Amino acid sequence: MSLLVVGTVAFDTIETPFGKADMAIGGSGTYISLSASYFTDKINLVSIIGNDFPQEELNLMQSKGINTSGIEQIKDMKSFYWHGKYHFDMNTRDSLVTDLNVLAVFNPNIPQNFKNADYLCLGNIDPTIQMSIINQVDKPNLIMCDTMNFWIETKNKELIETLKKVDILLINDSEARELTNEYNLVTAARKIFTMGPKIVVIKKGENGALLFHGDSIFFAPAYPLEKVFDPTGAGDTFAGGFMGWIAKTNDFSTENVKLAMIYGSAMASLVVEDFSINKLRNLTENIISERFDKFKGLVSF
Amino acid sequence: MSLLVVGTVAFDTIETPFGKADMAIGGSGTYISLSASYFTDKINLVSIIGNDFPQEELNLMQSKGINTSGIEQIKDMKSFYWHGKYHFDMNTRDSLVTDLNVLAVFNPNIPQNFKNADYLCLGNIDPTIQMSIINQVDKPNLIMCDTMNFWIETKNKELIETLKKVDILLINDSEARELTNEYNLVTAARKIFTMGPKIVVIKKGENGALLFHGDSIFFAPAYPLEKVFDPTGAGDTFAGGFMGWIAKTNDFSTENVKLAMIYGSAMASLVVEDFSINKLRNLTENIISERFDKFKGLVSF
Repeated sequence: MSLLVVGTVAFDTIETPFGKADMAIGGSGTYISLSASYFTDKINLVSIIGNDFPQEELNLMQSKGINTSGIEQIKDMKSFYWHGKYHFDMNTRDSLVTDLNVLAVFNPNIPQNFKNADYLCLGNIDPTIQMSIINQVDKPNLIMCDTMNFWIETKNKELIETLKKVDILLINDSEARELTNEYNLVTAARKIFTMGPKIVVIKKGENGALLFHGDSIFFAPAYPLEKVFDPTGAGDTFAGGFMGWIAKTNDFSTENVKLAMIYGSAMASLVVEDFSINKLRNLTENIISERFDKFKGLVSF
Repeated sequence: MSLLVVGTVAFDTIETPFGKADMAIGGSGTYISLSASYFTDKINLVSIIGNDFPQEELNLMQSKGINTSGIEQIKDMKSFYWHGKYHFDMNTRDSLVTDLNVLAVFNPNIPQNFKNADYLCLGNIDPTIQMSIINQVDKPNLIMCDTMNFWIETKNKELIETLKKVDILLINDSEARELTNEYNLVTAARKIFTMGPKIVVIKKGENGALLFHGDSIFFAPAYPLEKVFDPTGAGDTFAGGFMGWIAKTNDFSTENVKLAMIYGSAMASLVVEDFSINKLRNLTENIISERFDKFKGLVSF
């Protein structure tokens, strides 16, 4: 089935205790679509870049079956740029530079041939833009959206309106608490159900992710890795694996959504083993299914 | 098989955002042995109390099959007392009062009829005392010990000596990092293997617990509860369920130790639903196996 992804395609400069990557490829749209590409074809990406984004990286996406014709290029502007530095624990980070650049003028028109998307995955962008996209597409089987504390604080009303149209909310633990004013994550998830989403995925970083679907609660651990090089994009890679699996199988029963959680977690556990999107360049079905099996072993009793 | 438990039997005053319990029953020996009593008989408890400890609480232990004849009572002293206050997140707490009282003179002589214990569970006490106990018993099939940052910092050499004799170390994440000077928990566990223990259990509070056994890694989640009333004793209740299961089955294969992890987690998830040891007073096999099944559902895919 077809998957429409909307998110950033950008540059990141990443500092970790283990090294630094200057002007590496980043962006939620990049991570989501590359991760999803290992599960399904017919991925259409809508994003915006400047005159500085390398053609070979667009070629990489195309080689993975991602249709990049929905990426608008602005000739006299630069691509979105973020510079972050991770602390020793690799779970907390400081944003040193955030240059919106082209993102300041991002107001996407969804191409006509993308509008009948079966699945829609909205990366963490302004909820007003997320709503505009939802209004432009026909009726996808499922709409997932990500968000962040910045939008909860600065565009709360718009986010609440957008959530009414969303089927799956992907959110991290502190954001879920902030959105609902509930500390307990079970209570927070139940409150989010009343806002629109039927499925809530609460990401807890190195402590895994919780799935709430009706009365079901499911927990996907993060894989305990000896080497985590770069956590950037782990959440987006999770989202890509998750939605890629759902689009591939066209099945959003609780049992299949659990598998999507594990495929998402497997992809995230792979991507953090190298800087930037490097790990997503050359994965194989074998590597992914080996990692999936490791998750099985991690929790099976 | 017989299980020898050594730990404190004490009073706790507990403040949480949901209420306060004054002079409630606490202590690692109490939680461990009560939790284990739901799995196995022949539990012998070695501890120390003052003249203020209620006989009816000892009667409760006896009614669960716990032999309390190894609890020394000091006539002119008070029992160990701790007063703690939990923060809003229920994961962090301040110790407001710690009165050692009888614990200052705790130097147990293991009764002759306890020395041939099949299994030994050493609660979080001075590693010098832990070592003295190990030296007094015959040859248990398995020795588990708990410890804490205080001993890592103040009796490091003694702790390192004790660990050489220990089969299973139960430790929380920050303590594992402090003990090994390794931030990564996988690396930390491998380093602990070189110190003596063959099995390492790293507790992560509301984020579950990791089991390291040879090359196997297993993860037991904490159950996502809507109401956590009092986290006091959760780690000890986990230890009791874990060792109770091992003693019951007399099997420490990796597969069975995984089950011990889940039974320990199930018991811990029950105990936090009420103040103090209240939940451990009247559990049934049914309640425990229902909770076990919920864990199964939480991670099965």
